[in-house]
Amino acid sequence: MNGALLDLAKVTVTQFERRLDMQAGVLHRTVGIKMPDGTQLAITSQRLYSVAESQSAALSYQIRVVQGAAHLVLESGLDGDISNRDSNYDEKFWDEITRSANEEHISLQLKTKKTGFDVHTRVTQQLVHDGRSIAVSQVIDREKYVAQQYEFTLESGQEATLSKYAVILTSENHPVAEMSANAKALLQTVADIGFEQLLVQQAAGWAKIWKDSDIQIEGDVAAQQAIRFNIFQLYQTYNGEDDRLNIGPKGFTGEKYGGVTYWDTEAYCIPFYMATTKPEIARNLLIYRHKHLQKAIENAAKLGFKDGAALYPMVTINGEECHNEWEITFEEIHRNGAIAFAIYNYVRYTGDTSYLQEYGLEVLLGIARFWAQRVNWSEAKQQYVMLGVTGPNEYENNVNNNWYTNRIAAWCLQYTSEVIDQFASSNPDRVQYILQTTSFATAEKEKWQHIVANMYYPEDAERGVYLQQDGFLDKELIPVSQLPASERPLNQKWSWDRILRSCYIKQADVLQGLYFLEEQYDLDTIRRNYDSTNR
Amino acid sequence: MNGALLDLAKVTVTQFERRLDMQAGVLHRTVGIKMPDGTQLAITSQRLYSVAESQSAALSYQIRVVQGAAHLVLESGLDGDISNRDSNYDEKFWDEITRSANEEHISLQLKTKKTGFDVHTRVTQQLVHDGRSIAVSQVIDREKYVAQQYEFTLESGQEATLSKYAVILTSENHPVAEMSANAKALLQTVADIGFEQLLVQQAAGWAKIWKDSDIQIEGDVAAQQAIRFNIFQLYQTYNGEDDRLNIGPKGFTGEKYGGVTYWDTEAYCIPFYMATTKPEIARNLLIYRHKHLQKAIENAAKLGFKDGAALYPMVTINGEECHNEWEITFEEIHRNGAIAFAIYNYVRYTGDTSYLQEYGLEVLLGIARFWAQRVNWSEAKQQYVMLGVTGPNEYENNVNNNWYTNRIAAWCLQYTSEVIDQFASSNPDRVQYILQTTSFATAEKEKWQHIVANMYYPEDAERGVYLQQDGFLDKELIPVSQLPASERPLNQKWSWDRILRSCYIKQADVLQGLYFLEEQYDLDTIRRNYDSTNR
Repeated sequence: MNGALLDLAKVTVTQFERRLDMQAGVLHRTVGIKMPDGTQLAITSQRLYSVAESQSAALSYQIRVVQGAAHLVLESGLDGDISNRDSNYDEKFWDEITRSANEEHISLQLKTKKTGFDVHTRVTQQLVHDGRSIAVSQVIDREKYVAQQYEFTLESGQEATLSKYAVILTSENHPVAEMSANAKALLQTVADIGFEQLLVQQAAGWAKIWKDSDIQIEGDVAAQQAIRFNIFQLYQTYNGEDDRLNIGPKGFTGEKYGGVTYWDTEAYCIPFYMATTKPEIARNLLIYRHKHLQKAIENAAKLGFKDGAALYPMVTINGEECHNEWEITFEEIHRNGAIAFAIYNYVRYTGDTSYLQEYGLEVLLGIARFWAQRVNWSEAKQQYVMLGVTGPNEYENNVNNNWYTNRIAAWCLQYTSEVIDQFASSNPDRVQYILQTTSFATAEKEKWQHIVANMYYPEDAERGVYLQQDGFLDKELIPVSQLPASERPLNQKWSWDRILRSCYIKQADVLQGLYFLEEQYDLDTIRRNYDSTNR
Repeated sequence: MNGALLDLAKVTVTQFERRLDMQAGVLHRTVGIKMPDGTQLAITSQRLYSVAESQSAALSYQIRVVQGAAHLVLESGLDGDISNRDSNYDEKFWDEITRSANEEHISLQLKTKKTGFDVHTRVTQQLVHDGRSIAVSQVIDREKYVAQQYEFTLESGQEATLSKYAVILTSENHPVAEMSANAKALLQTVADIGFEQLLVQQAAGWAKIWKDSDIQIEGDVAAQQAIRFNIFQLYQTYNGEDDRLNIGPKGFTGEKYGGVTYWDTEAYCIPFYMATTKPEIARNLLIYRHKHLQKAIENAAKLGFKDGAALYPMVTINGEECHNEWEITFEEIHRNGAIAFAIYNYVRYTGDTSYLQEYGLEVLLGIARFWAQRVNWSEAKQQYVMLGVTGPNEYENNVNNNWYTNRIAAWCLQYTSEVIDQFASSNPDRVQYILQTTSFATAEKEKWQHIVANMYYPEDAERGVYLQQDGFLDKELIPVSQLPASERPLNQKWSWDRILRSCYIKQADVLQGLYFLEEQYDLDTIRRNYDSTNR
């Protein structure tokens, strides 16, 4: 602007607001700027990722001169050379496949490095000033970056508006050879709709989602806003229409968690989708894990498990383990339990047993076999124990007899037994086929029942609470209220050494089990355990 | 040779022998080769790293034509572009500082990347055939590589001998500006001695070492050879003349362990040096740790310990922690115990208490303070416990109450108390100075005594043995003799998951404590624990 770079870190910002309109699905930004030469600008923008037009996004960007006059060079493009905080060794994620840029459009086709997903992004944009389009003055076209530049002048009080339309196609949904043509056609449709009409469609689309999905909390505005923010993020990230996809915390391209799937899907997200939308979405999320069953069996085999035992990965995008720390990958095995529990939860909520027959039983069998091999008989205790695990509370590692893991493992064995018994009378062909092809033997079920009946659970009889793991009561049990404020939050103030040895937890662990299996515990038991954790 | 590259991987090798003469300190190699054109060669070499002429090495290399005739181009040089299997991400260790190469000599001055040690290597060599020197035909001089080439012809039965002399100087012993001149002077001395006389000196030098250091085992040739191999390697690696140096397993430039120092020095090597050579060598190894005391205090402070508590690093070359796995760096803390024990062991063996006054007490204070903060009082046990440690047996991680660690910690507190009491009467200035400058308070000693008197030790009363850690008896206790041979060695056949959960150990753990503190246990106790471990 007037020969200077407009960098918000270096100019005077007189106003700044970023506002997420969750009801209508639009992100607004308003910025007031005073340049070193005294010129004042007001910039506003609205952007959306369309819920009505799949694979499409749009941006409207207004620049108005409030005081003085501005000669502007505006560059708007696509950058494929982005960093991601979550990558290893600062490695970037994308290789360029093709790019093109001219006065009509810009496009980039990129490919992820290991998983080999092609993503084709194509943009068309238009800058309007005083009712007339301003022509592109320069096209920028270099490796992993394409853009268009506009050069124009605004007098005081004048405004220009950039409308930018983008379509983003992946090779999961388009043959690579057709991506460019498909993007061109779709982009034409979106641009023809125009930004104003896209806003209308977006509001209508979100109104439909909110009608079915809103959760209202009275008397606590912050909690109300928080739950709606969560709901908004869930539907931005995952709409359930594709059973090859799952929920990546912070999205596919977010700065953390790399777009991959965790057990959070089964433990925390599926109940929400079940309650707020059609059952097919929860079913699709379950089918996702069935598709990865063979990989889960391979994963368990790499660790020495056999006979079809399955260990689902802690973190995955294609069924393979993507995490790289031993204390997580082969010790945080409770994830297997949440995956089985979600099947039960789905059947309980929907009454749909066809999923169990078609897919669920096969997954349960793999998981049950894993648990039956993972426990061992303790001669000292004359009970089954589970050594060397990491529970949901990742502020502990490599512990023995994590209560939640022992509990959910026994529950899996019990539930799988019951499912087999349940189908024994109706005996549908599909169930018989699964039991045969997986070489299921009745002796297995007897072993599972022996484990269920003889599982060891650490508890403190005196306090009447379950213990997170063996030896927990040897810790210094200092309530959080007695810690100096200067030492919190612990994960920023304490060394990992102190955190690991402390009694403080990262997330629910014993309580995770009481949450899942609530109907098996009386209210007093739940209350005692809750109160002992939250001090 | 005759236009083909002599690559042992591609020609016919008719004979190959590599023989280490430990008595004389020379490595011999004999190779018989048949080239694709039918020519046959016999190559022999002898190499030594001189114990008589410090910083010097020499090689004699003979090529003889057994059948046919050979036109040879022989290249002999210095390569600074070497890889090391133990580096992270295949990073190489050396940067080039200077190099030079002509007909008289070749030299390379390299610098290690992080620690910044300069190493200057200079070589002169001579090729003799039929009593006459052959001139250098070509000098090779490129980044990190210098060499000389000789071109010559040998008829059947003829032989040529290359004598190569090298000096290797480090900036630890030479000002960087003088390294080149010092190397030149030293190399002249070594080359003037000549290879035959260097062999004589080497044999004499090693004879002197063997006279004092040999350990003889009768009736077991393999064990005799093994112990001598260990002695040979120890003296090749460390001669004790420099208190800035320590013992790097596999040496400074070996393919593993990166030339750095472990607790093995104190636990296993110091007793050998004490028994076989003058006490100054053990004393120098102890002084090495005193020099690193401030770094050890910083290391502990990073973890949240205070008031001069010291945690020595697991792996170091300059006092800083060089290891990078949490379960080792801040959990395998028993190393602190071995460092304290070595001080006791030295005083016990030599009767020299001046080391304790000058250096040892300061180290003991830092270590005792660490232990006093690292244990915690267990309300449940009404005893002190130590949570989240890794014992000497690294086939376990993050365990609670490792018997050896608890035992050596209590021992350190007891010994430090006794040393302070012992000097209380004689009360030398140096001791008073140390207690004052480290703000030692009598209350500390009382706390230590309370810990010593109330430390918890896991044991199995029924079997009358100590337990490696809490919960050990929950494991599947299957004797090694019952494991199929196909599953051994476990570290090649089993997943890390199975190994961690198993009862099998990597190295002595409970027995390490019984070895150190042998006089505190009766023979039956030692026998029961030994027998229960070795099944």
